[in-house]
Amino acid sequence: MSEKFTPITLDELPLRPELVGEEPYGAPQLDVPVCLNVNENPYPPSDAVREQMGKAIAESARTVNRYPDREAIELRTALATYLGFGLGTDNIWAANGSNEVMTHLLQAFGGPGRTVLGFSPTYSMYPEYARNTLTNYVAVPRSEDFRIEADAVLAAVEEHRADIILITTPNNPTGTTTPVSVIDEICTRLAEVRPDCIVVVDEAYQEFTEFPEDSALALLPRHQHLVVSRTMSKAFAYAGGRLGYLAATPAIVDACRIVRLPYHLSGASQAIALVALANSREMLHRVDALREQCQLLQQWLREQGYDVVPSQANFCLFGRFEDRHEVWQKLLDRGVLIRETGPDGFLRVSAGTPREMKAFREALTAIAPTITKETR
Amino acid sequence: MSEKFTPITLDELPLRPELVGEEPYGAPQLDVPVCLNVNENPYPPSDAVREQMGKAIAESARTVNRYPDREAIELRTALATYLGFGLGTDNIWAANGSNEVMTHLLQAFGGPGRTVLGFSPTYSMYPEYARNTLTNYVAVPRSEDFRIEADAVLAAVEEHRADIILITTPNNPTGTTTPVSVIDEICTRLAEVRPDCIVVVDEAYQEFTEFPEDSALALLPRHQHLVVSRTMSKAFAYAGGRLGYLAATPAIVDACRIVRLPYHLSGASQAIALVALANSREMLHRVDALREQCQLLQQWLREQGYDVVPSQANFCLFGRFEDRHEVWQKLLDRGVLIRETGPDGFLRVSAGTPREMKAFREALTAIAPTITKETR
Repeated sequence: MSEKFTPITLDELPLRPELVGEEPYGAPQLDVPVCLNVNENPYPPSDAVREQMGKAIAESARTVNRYPDREAIELRTALATYLGFGLGTDNIWAANGSNEVMTHLLQAFGGPGRTVLGFSPTYSMYPEYARNTLTNYVAVPRSEDFRIEADAVLAAVEEHRADIILITTPNNPTGTTTPVSVIDEICTRLAEVRPDCIVVVDEAYQEFTEFPEDSALALLPRHQHLVVSRTMSKAFAYAGGRLGYLAATPAIVDACRIVRLPYHLSGASQAIALVALANSREMLHRVDALREQCQLLQQWLREQGYDVVPSQANFCLFGRFEDRHEVWQKLLDRGVLIRETGPDGFLRVSAGTPREMKAFREALTAIAPTITKETR
Repeated sequence: MSEKFTPITLDELPLRPELVGEEPYGAPQLDVPVCLNVNENPYPPSDAVREQMGKAIAESARTVNRYPDREAIELRTALATYLGFGLGTDNIWAANGSNEVMTHLLQAFGGPGRTVLGFSPTYSMYPEYARNTLTNYVAVPRSEDFRIEADAVLAAVEEHRADIILITTPNNPTGTTTPVSVIDEICTRLAEVRPDCIVVVDEAYQEFTEFPEDSALALLPRHQHLVVSRTMSKAFAYAGGRLGYLAATPAIVDACRIVRLPYHLSGASQAIALVALANSREMLHRVDALREQCQLLQQWLREQGYDVVPSQANFCLFGRFEDRHEVWQKLLDRGVLIRETGPDGFLRVSAGTPREMKAFREALTAIAPTITKETR
């Protein structure tokens, strides 16, 4: 086609006004020996699990000419079983990554004239979900130590007349947890002052915490406007499978079913995720090791004199740098990719294998004499 | 959970006002011997292709713990090669079914205050895409014989100040085609009177037509606001794989990249679709047989005295019935599931295998004495 005309540019197209000047979201996709930039679990599945996945696909492809189960019943049942807490199939919704789950929630309960609150610094995709669903996004700052407190949340909900709030625990990019007791208090008080407000607790990194069972899932029987979001992308070592899900009262699942586009989950997505869930013990068996690596990482960074935000996830923020981009680039030049995100002066690094951690420590040690820490 | 509280109902939740009273979209999912309701290709892949798909997954699962290629470069390249017409990777966008492709287009170029036109009766998902993206949907009636003419389209675009138009060829549910020359004329005239208008030609069923190469793809070098949408769900016998795609000028692809959520296509979706595309000859090898079955089906229905809308797709509309629901139910009672859709009094039936077509003919013949045709 290129010979026949001069292609028009994006600027010449009638983009929706809010999108003008925007860039596609995403961390740089670089081919680098040590990737510690997107909080993946660095351990691939065993050969045995891979073979099971292959067999499941060869089997499910017998009907690949037909549409898949639109309701993903078997998968949602397996997810309910995995979560426990007495949850059943109709408490679970699943989609292509938490991205799509959160979009369904905002399509159902957000939209023009409605407001969603996030507590910043927090996950950088939230404004994208809001943008795509035409929901107003308000970032409410966390406390100095990146915590969330009930009083501040309630005040912000009332000030901004929030329709949805997003509580991320452990929070990305800080790794800070919000205790279940605080979430309970927030939900209880909201029921009095703003009973329609939907509370979404994003527990994407929950399995990495010291006490994974200490989850907002326990609150679901008490709070019917509460949603707990989870993903198989992180601890479950399944980022490539793109499977996010939520647990909530069945009516919230029904709301997602109205806005979802039919057959959103392919037959393959359902079949492979079922294999992963049937092998959940194995898929998760490195979580303890990663938790330990992350604590060792934080300790080592502190010993080197860096500010480190205490993290319960598989990553941590460290700094502070006068020019964080320069530090990021110098690490990249040494084959170690981390993430330039979070508050000014900080960088985020994921916990990896011992070998990856060693590479990171060596690279940071090597560049340390050339970088300037910020004095607050 | 059920013992602990009385679950709230959907009515009690703060749904976005436009969604109140809506039901999840979709044809009934029934376990029936003969499914002729969703225009699937009834032929599953060969054992050899299934095994290749299994192997591809066992292989790609080596990195299932990592995020997949966000840009799906290899897949988009294979789709460009499949389409031909001199298209390259940057002309192609792909997503989880045409549902998601069309949503990306409406998220980019629709939204509040913008209008998308469909030409009814047409695909029943279009209003859902519009609803989810807050775009105003206007259904403009086709001519008496379900055709689209340039004058009428131009008049409707001006009357409704349309930002996007959807031309479906072959059209679902009528099977009517719109000649490339008409699309060319529409694009040319629009460039004069409403140059920002995006023209989406939905060719979901193109491979079933008598001349599949007679495609709007040929017009892409001349019309930079033109988008041609395709899917692997129909002729490609790959509905379970959920792979829709479009071809357009690269800037339109870039617009989709802004609104897409990152990693929307799983590693598995990319790997299996590549296998299907590498075997496109086999995947498509029953298309000629289905085209023939569909023509025989139409001929037989006419011989039985039914009104049949001439169709170039793998389905046709027939009628007219005083009570089409009753006819649908009676066929279902005999194990044949077709679709209650399209203009009043009509039903839609997909072309199937010779065995499935025989079952349909026998069921319809058996119930014929009990049903009332409408006299216009």
